[in-house]
Amino acid sequence: MDLISKPVAYAAAFLAVFASTNQAHANEPGESQQITPSGTQRTVGGSPDFFTGSVRVEPVWPADKNINASGGLVTFEPYARSAWHTHPAGQRLWVVSGVGLTQEWGKPIREIRAGDVVWCPPGVKHWHGASARAAMTHLAITGNVEGKNVTWMEKVTDDQYNAR
Amino acid sequence: MDLISKPVAYAAAFLAVFASTNQAHANEPGESQQITPSGTQRTVGGSPDFFTGSVRVEPVWPADKNINASGGLVTFEPYARSAWHTHPAGQRLWVVSGVGLTQEWGKPIREIRAGDVVWCPPGVKHWHGASARAAMTHLAITGNVEGKNVTWMEKVTDDQYNAR
Repeated sequence: MDLISKPVAYAAAFLAVFASTNQAHANEPGESQQITPSGTQRTVGGSPDFFTGSVRVEPVWPADKNINASGGLVTFEPYARSAWHTHPAGQRLWVVSGVGLTQEWGKPIREIRAGDVVWCPPGVKHWHGASARAAMTHLAITGNVEGKNVTWMEKVTDDQYNAR
Repeated sequence: MDLISKPVAYAAAFLAVFASTNQAHANEPGESQQITPSGTQRTVGGSPDFFTGSVRVEPVWPADKNINASGGLVTFEPYARSAWHTHPAGQRLWVVSGVGLTQEWGKPIREIRAGDVVWCPPGVKHWHGASARAAMTHLAITGNVEGKNVTWMEKVTDDQYNAR
């Protein structure tokens, strides 16, 4: 039931790898309902190329031919955040716990809390992460276009993070 | 920010209504990142036409032209369950808390617990709900085909529910 065959590659670019169809979840004619038990999908760390600070990623489901978006639970320790990036098919973030921050390029940083839902339209440059004083966990539902779901950009500097 | 303009209709067939594109989340060229705060989407009860027992539905995000599946948080009190049904584009269930049950037509009832993920392929007849002794909450990620995401069938009888 381990869905990630190449954890190093996955850790380096989890969204891109997570975007590809996963055999364990492939839907074939006549296939039955499947249960993926808790703890059987590999948890990985966010790559320092694309994240600042300590970030943990728990895959929930991959995109496939039926549902064109993956789901991943991402936990940011205080002060941790993604790099700037865009999504070709957009992304929804459902905040599960804690207090986080998100920012669209050129706009103010906004605080997000448990139960909030963020919609980031396709091509909109943004980042998201924890607040400086509290961790934050969100489920990221990321749209997939032909196996691609993210374009990574520059890191969020401390000055940018602390600007609010 | 109230995303449900017709709560009665929604309560009667929440999945179908939730499947349609929602204006509050519509993505227009040049649109910005949007935050839907916790508590601003209407919580509804599951209709007795399609559910047995006490069921609460909290919309999280609607399907739209970018991401072809909705997300809804569904809480089943002990003994509560959906009717039998199918999904034209399948459904993933991410169990958030509690202990639940699910069954595919013709197969044994299976127990699901927090962190488990269920994949129900298109057209597979199934039901899901709480266990008899514990409530269960899952996020239902339901694929959408031309505005339709569920076909409801007969209720799950007590004999069926208690068969395991």
